[in-house]
Amino acid sequence: MARPVFLSLDGVDGTGKTTQCRLLVDWLRTQKVPVTACADPGGTALGQELRQLLLFGRDHAMAVITEALLFMASRAQLVEEVIRPALARGEVVVSDRFLLANVVYQGHAGGLNPADVWAVGRFATGGLEPDLTLVFDVPPDVAVQRRQSDADRLEDRGAEYYARVRTGFTYEAGMRPEKFRLIDATPAIDTVHLEVRRHVSRVLTEHGWDVALG
Amino acid sequence: MARPVFLSLDGVDGTGKTTQCRLLVDWLRTQKVPVTACADPGGTALGQELRQLLLFGRDHAMAVITEALLFMASRAQLVEEVIRPALARGEVVVSDRFLLANVVYQGHAGGLNPADVWAVGRFATGGLEPDLTLVFDVPPDVAVQRRQSDADRLEDRGAEYYARVRTGFTYEAGMRPEKFRLIDATPAIDTVHLEVRRHVSRVLTEHGWDVALG
Repeated sequence: MARPVFLSLDGVDGTGKTTQCRLLVDWLRTQKVPVTACADPGGTALGQELRQLLLFGRDHAMAVITEALLFMASRAQLVEEVIRPALARGEVVVSDRFLLANVVYQGHAGGLNPADVWAVGRFATGGLEPDLTLVFDVPPDVAVQRRQSDADRLEDRGAEYYARVRTGFTYEAGMRPEKFRLIDATPAIDTVHLEVRRHVSRVLTEHGWDVALG
Repeated sequence: MARPVFLSLDGVDGTGKTTQCRLLVDWLRTQKVPVTACADPGGTALGQELRQLLLFGRDHAMAVITEALLFMASRAQLVEEVIRPALARGEVVVSDRFLLANVVYQGHAGGLNPADVWAVGRFATGGLEPDLTLVFDVPPDVAVQRRQSDADRLEDRGAEYYARVRTGFTYEAGMRPEKFRLIDATPAIDTVHLEVRRHVSRVLTEHGWDVALG
């Protein structure tokens, strides 16, 4: 009997993370795996409103703690409204980002204590965390090339900030290798996708799913 | 040399709390005390947007954790943008509600663990808490009479909920009498205001302010 699995894809912007989410979901569907895909922040009606505030609310001069808490609120609603119900139906959930992004962006890069962000995150999610988070990494020059031209507020902060973000992700991934897996996203999209399949098929097999790597 | 003081007025709805805030601020100004008044939630441009979501966003079927986190986000911004700067200028701050309301409404009455709400609150406020919180209390029948007819979403929940809220406030006030002072708000407005003056003048005097009870 296959058990529900919660997967998240995360990492610095410009790694093709969102594309990889889509490819992963498509592949799982060809494998007859029932999938719910979502994005954090966002993923609910309330989350969409908060996402707009967060990404485009430049006029608010938002404090970093405020920013972290709005992400947390959006995530709490996403967990309650989308993720827990999907897991309760026995599905596989694929989330484009999750709590780790807050720990890195507002914690490591933003100046908040990462341990505090984890703690507030446990409150927001009721302790729910992904069974596996794939953390996409690319060198800075690759990321800059790939980043969409309409860079949003959170990404519009220069090389030193980018370095802190990258270090945050690699640090956190290194601290809990059983939950976070660092992936080099420099190669072509299809090559990276095969690497994603490899990691995901292992955790799905562990949870009783029958998937073929293809 | 007078030192800054942070005051908050809280309690169930229908106790005349907001009126008492205004009377307190007016009185402090006659005493030549520099005052910043604010409301939580609200008090900043971002806070106003969140307040609208919280009080009137009925269509979102908001989870109680989401609700708590949105209050926290609004409060974090209020602390950063309004309260800390006012205290840094050496002023007295009077806030219409603060963290205690979350502990009671989403904690005691809403089902979250009050200790968790306090902990997330310490994160949101960076540990800032009022030097004194006046907690207004009235029996249920008085509150019902006084409550504005356009009851908002959070107050629209019946007698048993009201009882849990009232118990939450009295419990928390009882646990830390040095920080929270329970006030019987049943008497006439002017009588209650004199009681407010009495408590506030004591804490102001302790902080080096020269006020006459009048």
